Amino acid sequence: MQKIQPGHFYAVGIGPGSPDLLTVRAVNIIEAVDVILTPQAKGSNRSLALNAIAPYLHQQEVMTVNYPMQRNGSNTQERWRRVAEEVMQELQQGRSVAMITIGDPLIFATTSYLLYGLSERLAKEKIHIIPGISAFQIGASRFHDPLTLQEDRLTLMSATDLKAVENALSHCETLVLYKAAGVIVDLIALLKNKNLLSSSRLVSCVEHGAQELVVEDLELWAPQELNYMTTVIVRTGEKSWQKEEKQDKGTQF
Amino acid sequence: MQKIQPGHFYAVGIGPGSPDLLTVRAVNIIEAVDVILTPQAKGSNRSLALNAIAPYLHQQEVMTVNYPMQRNGSNTQERWRRVAEEVMQELQQGRSVAMITIGDPLIFATTSYLLYGLSERLAKEKIHIIPGISAFQIGASRFHDPLTLQEDRLTLMSATDLKAVENALSHCETLVLYKAAGVIVDLIALLKNKNLLSSSRLVSCVEHGAQELVVEDLELWAPQELNYMTTVIVRTGEKSWQKEEKQDKGTQF
Repeated sequence: MQKIQPGHFYAVGIGPGSPDLLTVRAVNIIEAVDVILTPQAKGSNRSLALNAIAPYLHQQEVMTVNYPMQRNGSNTQERWRRVAEEVMQELQQGRSVAMITIGDPLIFATTSYLLYGLSERLAKEKIHIIPGISAFQIGASRFHDPLTLQEDRLTLMSATDLKAVENALSHCETLVLYKAAGVIVDLIALLKNKNLLSSSRLVSCVEHGAQELVVEDLELWAPQELNYMTTVIVRTGEKSWQKEEKQDKGTQF
Repeated sequence: MQKIQPGHFYAVGIGPGSPDLLTVRAVNIIEAVDVILTPQAKGSNRSLALNAIAPYLHQQEVMTVNYPMQRNGSNTQERWRRVAEEVMQELQQGRSVAMITIGDPLIFATTSYLLYGLSERLAKEKIHIIPGISAFQIGASRFHDPLTLQEDRLTLMSATDLKAVENALSHCETLVLYKAAGVIVDLIALLKNKNLLSSSRLVSCVEHGAQELVVEDLELWAPQELNYMTTVIVRTGEKSWQKEEKQDKGTQF
């Protein structure tokens, strides 16, 4: 069991949003830490991360870090630099600080910006990363086939640049597209054009109760408004594992 | 909280091997289920998965599923078909069954073979997938920079086919290579040739105490014998997020 240490920083992945999808280690750290930082993009729903850890909150101080939702170059960098300095002040007073992140702190997470700032100021051994269940994992769990097996390549990326998406379809067996909501109409047209629409699935707000949307086959989907947290999983094919009879490679996952 | 139901099957990811890296949900299921299946490749170390869940074992029945380490087409398929039938017998008697998997049950996991067999025999709503922390997540947590951010593409694949690895280096910003031990000498030669050796990292047996090996920079690595569970993380570049000043795209992870 990892013991909380004074003056140490913990980047804690809290998973998709359900309190029971935190790891035991994440729970232990959140319960023992002095200060909990929770990032909040302006205009977004602050309660998501705090709801996920609600059962584990008691005496800890909770600090909200506001940051602009837009990427805005030097402004964003300056904002995170100031947050890093505030965190350093807490740490230098001997307090322990945890920043919580929906999902995993190293996979498409704003925590990364803070980690950059901190790594210039804080000794490496005082920084701890606690992985969390990422959106693609909980999304895929709603279907019952593997994301990747044997020699299959799995690629995760943002859906925002459809030219890049089209290119990626030829270089992996499973493609996970985050942030699909904003491009959904054009993305569906692209997948249809590639004959991949019926091998494509969509999930949104997984583990968020009645908001959860699971579409097994995008061919059957009627357009509707989608939440920001929408993921599309495209199965472009598989290298070998369904033609297994022909193989005897002497290796196995 | 997910309640265990009689006659239901649970594919439970238990993470890298530490008992506190299971999710709370995985712990709850393992503690409440009637039968726990633990897969064991012939010749491998059975205790890894069982050690990870040891604190949560009391009255549950534990069944070991032996399977050949080699891929052997129809033999392997036949073995998993028989396991699926044994599981069905338990379920039909009203018992609940959980199969535990190191890592995540949908990412390079033998659980996938059993899921194929079960999905032909069992109603969809009686199958539950509980994601777990995958090897690449705990591996990356030993370093402090993001796996992927903004428009970066992250690809996971086996290192076994070096031609495929070389190809993948040009189609993602971060490449995670599983099963790197068997090809390490040739892989290092390839990365050196591509000028990527100093952007490559190696982890092995993460969270396994003294066995844990963390190599920050493959350039500095002296060849040594490696465990089967060895992962290499190659940073091939980044699309934009370190040149942030130039950007104002209006979107952000």
